[in-house]
Amino acid sequence: MNNTFDFVVFGGLGDLSIRKLLPALYRGERDNVFSADTRILLVAREDKKKAAIMRIVQEGLKEHLKEGEYETDCWQRFSQRLHYAGVDLKQCDERWQLINKHLDDHPDRIRVFYLATPPSLYADICDNLEVNQLITSATRIVLEKPLGYDHASATEINAKVAEHFDEADIYRIDHYLGKETVQNLLTLRFGNAMFEPLWDNKLIEHIQITIAESVGLEGRAGFYDNVGALRDMVQNHLLQLLCLIAMEPPTKLDAHNIRAEKLKVLQALRRIDKRNVDEDTVRGRYTSGVVNAVPVPGYQEELGEKGADSQTETYVALKAHIDNWRWSGVPFYLRTGKRLEKRFAEIVIQYRPVSHRVFDESAGAMQPNRLVIRLQPDEGIRLTLMTKELHRRGIRMRPSTLNLDFSNQYDRASDAYLRLILDVVEGNQALFAQREEVECAWAWIDPIIDAWHSQGTPPQPYPAGSRGPAEVDQRLHNGELPWFV
Amino acid sequence: MNNTFDFVVFGGLGDLSIRKLLPALYRGERDNVFSADTRILLVAREDKKKAAIMRIVQEGLKEHLKEGEYETDCWQRFSQRLHYAGVDLKQCDERWQLINKHLDDHPDRIRVFYLATPPSLYADICDNLEVNQLITSATRIVLEKPLGYDHASATEINAKVAEHFDEADIYRIDHYLGKETVQNLLTLRFGNAMFEPLWDNKLIEHIQITIAESVGLEGRAGFYDNVGALRDMVQNHLLQLLCLIAMEPPTKLDAHNIRAEKLKVLQALRRIDKRNVDEDTVRGRYTSGVVNAVPVPGYQEELGEKGADSQTETYVALKAHIDNWRWSGVPFYLRTGKRLEKRFAEIVIQYRPVSHRVFDESAGAMQPNRLVIRLQPDEGIRLTLMTKELHRRGIRMRPSTLNLDFSNQYDRASDAYLRLILDVVEGNQALFAQREEVECAWAWIDPIIDAWHSQGTPPQPYPAGSRGPAEVDQRLHNGELPWFV
Repeated sequence: MNNTFDFVVFGGLGDLSIRKLLPALYRGERDNVFSADTRILLVAREDKKKAAIMRIVQEGLKEHLKEGEYETDCWQRFSQRLHYAGVDLKQCDERWQLINKHLDDHPDRIRVFYLATPPSLYADICDNLEVNQLITSATRIVLEKPLGYDHASATEINAKVAEHFDEADIYRIDHYLGKETVQNLLTLRFGNAMFEPLWDNKLIEHIQITIAESVGLEGRAGFYDNVGALRDMVQNHLLQLLCLIAMEPPTKLDAHNIRAEKLKVLQALRRIDKRNVDEDTVRGRYTSGVVNAVPVPGYQEELGEKGADSQTETYVALKAHIDNWRWSGVPFYLRTGKRLEKRFAEIVIQYRPVSHRVFDESAGAMQPNRLVIRLQPDEGIRLTLMTKELHRRGIRMRPSTLNLDFSNQYDRASDAYLRLILDVVEGNQALFAQREEVECAWAWIDPIIDAWHSQGTPPQPYPAGSRGPAEVDQRLHNGELPWFV
Repeated sequence: MNNTFDFVVFGGLGDLSIRKLLPALYRGERDNVFSADTRILLVAREDKKKAAIMRIVQEGLKEHLKEGEYETDCWQRFSQRLHYAGVDLKQCDERWQLINKHLDDHPDRIRVFYLATPPSLYADICDNLEVNQLITSATRIVLEKPLGYDHASATEINAKVAEHFDEADIYRIDHYLGKETVQNLLTLRFGNAMFEPLWDNKLIEHIQITIAESVGLEGRAGFYDNVGALRDMVQNHLLQLLCLIAMEPPTKLDAHNIRAEKLKVLQALRRIDKRNVDEDTVRGRYTSGVVNAVPVPGYQEELGEKGADSQTETYVALKAHIDNWRWSGVPFYLRTGKRLEKRFAEIVIQYRPVSHRVFDESAGAMQPNRLVIRLQPDEGIRLTLMTKELHRRGIRMRPSTLNLDFSNQYDRASDAYLRLILDVVEGNQALFAQREEVECAWAWIDPIIDAWHSQGTPPQPYPAGSRGPAEVDQRLHNGELPWFV
């Protein structure tokens, strides 16, 4: 990394910054990817002394880095880069000049504004950046999810940001796309002549994308109860992953072409509304239970007073269809929820059985092929094949699992946020969503929410620590969907 | 194995029996696959005492078993099963009754006659078996290669054997088909929905089948000089492997259907004759050289006096085409020879490059996929894929090799001869060639030999210890063919 840049985090002491961004930046320090002059400026409302801010950051790193990652030497170097400005982001006052003070000495430098704040602040931040002449020709802005609440609000935010920034300088981040394995999936699909012929409705029976969380509200009750699982997870993470899996081979693996292909997938999603919402969706909400051997309260109890009236889902399962030539007839099962049995994220490509069995009974049972892309908690790609049981005279089949990327352990360098931050600095938008994608995704999400509301059916209860509402498998799939492969 | 059987080896003290069959049977003893009453009768011309015969067998086992395989206890048990009859196979005299003496007490038992003799004796042996009423309804006969010398002689032998045996009781053995990996190849192809779509001219660029030997004449000069590499190896081993790779999926993986599919492949082989023999074949003959650091003489020197006149090839490379829908345009390179650099047998499925490169230059070079089925000296199946280099931010590709059967070591149980012998006892002809296959293979071989003779071009010299004649790659492939993968 040769570029020197100034990296400005709005909401610099917030949850996202402390838990994700600062650990990612710290790892960049450790891996020596930043030039000596590169600076990091945290902007937050608190009007504290720098020493106090540094203590907060240091404590946050110690808490959120993995065991053994925090090193005093590295912290010393890292803290030299860190600066702080206490600014009330909603106010247009002289405190904004604190930011100018930090940045104005290097107006030519690449400048990244990372908006780690609620989207309700995006408009004010953009206006203030403009007013204070902080937007240079080398400035890029990073927007975090959720980008809006529905199609209308997302369009409004995008329009607002577009008043100040070109689309080429706007980076809508989704850290799932920064995972090593997502890039390895693209390499497998397009780096090998063998996979593309296996990537359609002739061979694939269905595809599952699951992001399961074991955590509950984590203090975000106020935010979450206005959002729910569909908006919080499906509209962004699950649909983005679906796009990368389902897209046609792009002409080039660059931002322009990847985004164009992803958009085509979103545009081909079959509408779910009140006609089919019962067949194709299941909403759930956790009740009290036990997660990882710890008793936990239900969602409504966590919410407290407001719990009685809440209709928010903490779990959603969808059967999506992509109405195009390649995917016609192949269901995409999307599942996500909180307080589930375990935390994992997986994409499962489930192949059809062989078209005809040539083996006699003595060869035993056959399992259809399966390709599993694991994103969380560890990363990896595995392929299940039938092979011959060795050292037997006749053919007896057994399933064998191949580890397609040979990585038993992803090392410390694999930080999805760091990867994406460096892409921003380099101006590579390939793994960031363009405006039309976000709006198109919302346009698919809105009718589902409308249908739920118009029917008034409450979310199905599921005990915390379970795998979600019991009827999911039967209702969506007519049989058990593997939960964890 | 519950069947009790009598196993009679004609040529019981010959080279094949001592080097291959007796070690295979010994391994069956060690693995306890024979019932207590199962007997082995060695028939050979020598009129020796049983003790002397036993010493020959024992010495042979000690020499040809792998290190650590010979165990005194096992030999004790094995030797209890061994019997001997000194019979001149060409003569129809009373000594044949020695065989009856051994077998007549159990006329209902499965009886296997294994003809480990030159094919010139097959007719006499069959006649004598008939005359001496040794052929029961439970009798099977095993024929070793070479089955004839050309189409006419093969047809004659088959006709002769058919006078005495039904085709259902005739087992034409090819030990390459007894290898574990050949059955694993069939399992991969037909046990997984993923492979069959990858098995045709749309994706495969070419297929190589190579059986390289490092040995020379091994005392078989008289035999070999009348035969040559094309008859000795291609007509049987290489074409049989080609059939299993190229055949259409059979209705069932049983003898009837497999053989029918193999026959269709042989019938679809494009004729090579004087019109195209120069383009599609290379003959070679080794001169003196160094193999495994040992200086060795050339073929003509090994032959001695007759060497000056010999026109026999010890190496052959062919470009074969299968003129059917699946394989049109895909060359099959068949190579075999003696005194080559190293001993190995491999089938290489070489895929085409990806149809379009989506990666930019920084992703590095791409190699087309390759599936390698190794038969010798070790067995295994490997697939080469492009994957992402881990722990790099952008995509940089690297070739990764997957071991598809997970067997780093095939254990002692894998003896191809034993596997096939037990198939004979069980009456399973799936891995044995039927009459029409053998004759059809010869019908393809004969015009090649005729063309060589009519042109009178001598075999190209190659130094012992090399990879064969230098012009092979350019002449057949227009570029280097990988020699050893």
